[in-house]
Amino acid sequence: MFSVVRKSPIPLADQLVERVSELIESGRLPEGSRLPSVRQLAHRVGVSVYTVTSAFERLSAKGLIDARAGAGYFVAPARNRAAAPRIELGPLASLDPILGFARQTLEQHHFAVPAGSGFLPGSWLTDAVPSSILSKVARSGVLLESAPVQGDPGLRELLAERIRMAGVPIAARCIVVTFGASHAFDLIARTLLKPNDSVLVDDPGYFVLHAQLRAHSAHLIPIPRIAEGTDLDALESAARLHRPRMFVTQTVLHNPTGTSATAANCHGILTLAEKYNFVVVEDHVYTDLAPRPVVSLAQIDELKRVLYVGSFTKVLGPGMRIGFIAAPEALVPQLVDSKILAVLSGSALDEFVLRELLASGKYRKHTERLRDRLGPARATSIAALRRAGLIIEQSATDGIFLWCRLPTGVDPERLCVDARAIGILLAKGTMFSISGQGHGYLRINAAYGDEPILWRFLESRCRAAA
Amino acid sequence: MFSVVRKSPIPLADQLVERVSELIESGRLPEGSRLPSVRQLAHRVGVSVYTVTSAFERLSAKGLIDARAGAGYFVAPARNRAAAPRIELGPLASLDPILGFARQTLEQHHFAVPAGSGFLPGSWLTDAVPSSILSKVARSGVLLESAPVQGDPGLRELLAERIRMAGVPIAARCIVVTFGASHAFDLIARTLLKPNDSVLVDDPGYFVLHAQLRAHSAHLIPIPRIAEGTDLDALESAARLHRPRMFVTQTVLHNPTGTSATAANCHGILTLAEKYNFVVVEDHVYTDLAPRPVVSLAQIDELKRVLYVGSFTKVLGPGMRIGFIAAPEALVPQLVDSKILAVLSGSALDEFVLRELLASGKYRKHTERLRDRLGPARATSIAALRRAGLIIEQSATDGIFLWCRLPTGVDPERLCVDARAIGILLAKGTMFSISGQGHGYLRINAAYGDEPILWRFLESRCRAAA
Repeated sequence: MFSVVRKSPIPLADQLVERVSELIESGRLPEGSRLPSVRQLAHRVGVSVYTVTSAFERLSAKGLIDARAGAGYFVAPARNRAAAPRIELGPLASLDPILGFARQTLEQHHFAVPAGSGFLPGSWLTDAVPSSILSKVARSGVLLESAPVQGDPGLRELLAERIRMAGVPIAARCIVVTFGASHAFDLIARTLLKPNDSVLVDDPGYFVLHAQLRAHSAHLIPIPRIAEGTDLDALESAARLHRPRMFVTQTVLHNPTGTSATAANCHGILTLAEKYNFVVVEDHVYTDLAPRPVVSLAQIDELKRVLYVGSFTKVLGPGMRIGFIAAPEALVPQLVDSKILAVLSGSALDEFVLRELLASGKYRKHTERLRDRLGPARATSIAALRRAGLIIEQSATDGIFLWCRLPTGVDPERLCVDARAIGILLAKGTMFSISGQGHGYLRINAAYGDEPILWRFLESRCRAAA
Repeated sequence: MFSVVRKSPIPLADQLVERVSELIESGRLPEGSRLPSVRQLAHRVGVSVYTVTSAFERLSAKGLIDARAGAGYFVAPARNRAAAPRIELGPLASLDPILGFARQTLEQHHFAVPAGSGFLPGSWLTDAVPSSILSKVARSGVLLESAPVQGDPGLRELLAERIRMAGVPIAARCIVVTFGASHAFDLIARTLLKPNDSVLVDDPGYFVLHAQLRAHSAHLIPIPRIAEGTDLDALESAARLHRPRMFVTQTVLHNPTGTSATAANCHGILTLAEKYNFVVVEDHVYTDLAPRPVVSLAQIDELKRVLYVGSFTKVLGPGMRIGFIAAPEALVPQLVDSKILAVLSGSALDEFVLRELLASGKYRKHTERLRDRLGPARATSIAALRRAGLIIEQSATDGIFLWCRLPTGVDPERLCVDARAIGILLAKGTMFSISGQGHGYLRINAAYGDEPILWRFLESRCRAAA
């Protein structure tokens, strides 16, 4: 039943995975039936215990078998195999629910409809990194040396040019390349925060950032997000009361509400930052998806007390871990030292690819294509979700996020759990809020809002509650 | 004099860089002469201030001009242009001398002879990542999704297989992929250390690790490194006195002494780890360069209290930031959460390339070629350095490092500064030691030991001191 071909070029573990998959899929090993123990099977087939362990691990990952502690391996229920998530659970799940959710959004391919994800669908990104660029890497010799710690100078020059085009005067020497925006936030926190420093954050806002700041023992103060940007009265009271070290905010296409701060609001933030002497970290990860010119804190402040954090993972795909910090010059050496302490240096491969994409204009063209696609998708999704019964306000007009209110009577917790069981990942509003503000909201990715599985599910739940 | 061609396809900044370089190299702009100010030049040539700033920045990076605070830009002395390091100094230098040195070893291409570097020369690595593998990336679709946070399952399976071949029983689910070994140490410190925890370290040992642990507010206790591995008496006294949380050690091809711990020594370390209940972090970054099978703590302990840290940057080149932690299963979820907090996720590109290299056997073949080249290079370097007057003990037989004692009368500080001025990077022994043990030693990379510029310089200094 479990035989393998010893002289085959196919590794024994692969053969075992195939064989067991076949037996399960053909029904010869029915749901719930117990597999031989690792040792028994190794003995019976004549392979090592490690071969069997590795095969079983892969079968578990595929959702075909389940390990039950102390009892062995069993054929998993058939429903787990279809649309169900195949995320590794059990001992490998995250300890923190917020980080566990972050992991699910990163592993969105496990879901039929990852509507709670902050990334665009893979199918939108197929032209993002053309193979012509990758085939240049070997010729370039870029892998023979490390990427300079601060980041490739040619890449930094191109980044500086882009930021200058957005109206922020900056030189390449003020840019530090990072493994994405999260890495940038970590380096900034390492560099600027002492334990128990007060840090102001958007509420609602990006949940992984909240967890990162807490990991640096920061005391988080929520500042309500309103349609125009930051609630300036709340910002001033918090600044007066807590004397914060920094305010981390996303002015453009805010996650999760989708709103962008007005120029007047930006001016108000900077006036308070000066008055109460705090640093502002401006999260620009969605800025390239904005279809029209945007105003930013960095532009008004000219990077005197603002640190500008950018990223390319939203536009090139989450597999490309690359972003940057544009900082006041005096902070750059400290940020570079923090980078050495955290990761030693960056990836020459990813930096080369990004440099080529920017220099060739391919990044710009790809971004234009994404924006052209995102606008109509957003409109279609809004219509579909409203028909399903969700309430979507008008204050946000662009970008990837729809901040949707559920009708009274729909329990968001229950909704998310049930959605997951049918392969839909939803992001519930409370996750984004440290003050409990987002209760009754969902953040829905505009690229998925008109997926029939999603809106039919939402419609049935909204109707049942009505 | 500074004219540019406005309609040329060559960017204006590039034209300016070329033009000024020519003027300097032809002697028309002599050493020490002052350049027009950024504004003047922008006005005169009819380009933006940013174009000139960017051109000047690149000229500074090339060592052709110097910025003097408040006074403007001047043509740099000619000696700076030849073999001299072109590392960005001034405001961008590291604040910490140890990190500054780390940065120099990473930017080794700035030196004619980077003998103090811990990386192999780029010329040894040209076949490390064949273009055939890079051209597969686009087809693979790997960039359309993020790398799973813990690391690509196929890659983890291959890593587990390699570690099992080294005699350590491990499953893929116990591996966390990182951006290299330094990132691994940072994640381990984040996960396991509280401020003021005592941590035992090899003395001498890897200086960046010392700085990383200090950044986590660890109290470092030096444990002398001897020919057989760790000084077990010193380890026991320190363990009794300080009740450490962990011991970080490099059993195989130790940096900087090049020695490997014996099996008996490994057994002794583990016995003390059990008796005094500390975790052992075993740094395996040079293991793949060992020409014969090695014994390791992980192998004896079977990853119960040992964390095994590996890296591919030493063999594939420092531009590939990829490594891993193989950990006791119970620690894996915490390490994964620390990774989310630090960088969110890994690079799908680097992970794909490594997976292909391992799966195709190309990594193994490249490693064999490196070892075949390193053995003879080591012997030649030892002979050359001994002729020059350095004392090299026999206890280390393999790997990249030669731990060389200077004859009495040679001042190591002076030697390193003078070496740098002629394009030689040297690593002085005191940098590796937190107890001051390495005084009078240099760590020399065996790939560079017979470079005539190096040994002639060393010979002249040793003779002068005799």
